[in-house]
Amino acid sequence: MLSLKSETSPDWVARLEPHMDEVLIDHAHCEKKAAGTAMNMIFSYVEHPEFVVPLTEVVEEELLHFRQVIEVLVSRGKKLVGQPQSSYGRRLSALIRTNEPDKVVDRCCVAALIEARSCERFTLLRDHLRDPRLADFYGTLLESEARHHALYLRLAEHFATKDVIRDRLEELAQEEASIVADGDPTPRLHS
Amino acid sequence: MLSLKSETSPDWVARLEPHMDEVLIDHAHCEKKAAGTAMNMIFSYVEHPEFVVPLTEVVEEELLHFRQVIEVLVSRGKKLVGQPQSSYGRRLSALIRTNEPDKVVDRCCVAALIEARSCERFTLLRDHLRDPRLADFYGTLLESEARHHALYLRLAEHFATKDVIRDRLEELAQEEASIVADGDPTPRLHS
Repeated sequence: MLSLKSETSPDWVARLEPHMDEVLIDHAHCEKKAAGTAMNMIFSYVEHPEFVVPLTEVVEEELLHFRQVIEVLVSRGKKLVGQPQSSYGRRLSALIRTNEPDKVVDRCCVAALIEARSCERFTLLRDHLRDPRLADFYGTLLESEARHHALYLRLAEHFATKDVIRDRLEELAQEEASIVADGDPTPRLHS
Repeated sequence: MLSLKSETSPDWVARLEPHMDEVLIDHAHCEKKAAGTAMNMIFSYVEHPEFVVPLTEVVEEELLHFRQVIEVLVSRGKKLVGQPQSSYGRRLSALIRTNEPDKVVDRCCVAALIEARSCERFTLLRDHLRDPRLADFYGTLLESEARHHALYLRLAEHFATKDVIRDRLEELAQEEASIVADGDPTPRLHS
């Protein structure tokens, strides 16, 4: 699904379900980081309007989701607090090559894979969470994750051929699957 | 006007007018930086939802303006290119104290002053530019600059009393006026 090289078992939802407050806090931080990632790419590639203009819309959508997750937290009487960083994003970012245009291709592929994994996980949460309000909430977020996945891969085409992108995406998707398989000791959306 | 300690002469428009492509490029970078400033504050103070939620809307509005300025540039057959940084933002940022809560108060006051100066300058551009399309364009941006000015000062109240903010704003406004008076060798919105 969406370039991913591994499939999350529905058991994952059962393991996460007792920790939904912590997961929602992680989720808010993920939406913030997704907005920050798109903003950083706007700063890096500002001389390419056809590349950065669609990214401004990604920032806006991620910030909308950020606000929505905060609302859900508030409705549960919880506050957004700091959390130790999960290893997922950090390990993926470490795979980004440092020379252009490899760097921008990798940044797009990594962002696309994170969106794809979010989309996969949100689908499981929609289908298996027992809390119908939360299940519905995750259902509303799916479409934009899938759209951002496709957008990041399309944006990479400003800097590389489709073949180059496909090959690199394949490599990074293998790495992503292996990072996910290692797991994380804390209940997180991407662990 | 809006806390500012100096008034820009309408002659400023006449000096800038022959360089409007360069000014529009500066303007696009300013909108991008304004969005980045609000985003950085979201990252710094994410545990204060009542502080960061309004900032998400600032990011969105600045990015909308960023897209609009790019459109104007494109309609003039110009491209957004890199520019040497003007001294205005750099010198103002250097005044921000490093310990909290002074730091957040200063970040809010500096952001409020930049919005105020933009509002003042956009008003002059609306009233004195001879190109009616550009004059109209600057007229459409005024209201949100004034609104962001007020918002940043209101947000500072999450971290300090009105008296403390007013006194510090007064000091920083004096500094801002002195930076503006020094000018910048290049045609820029804030020089």
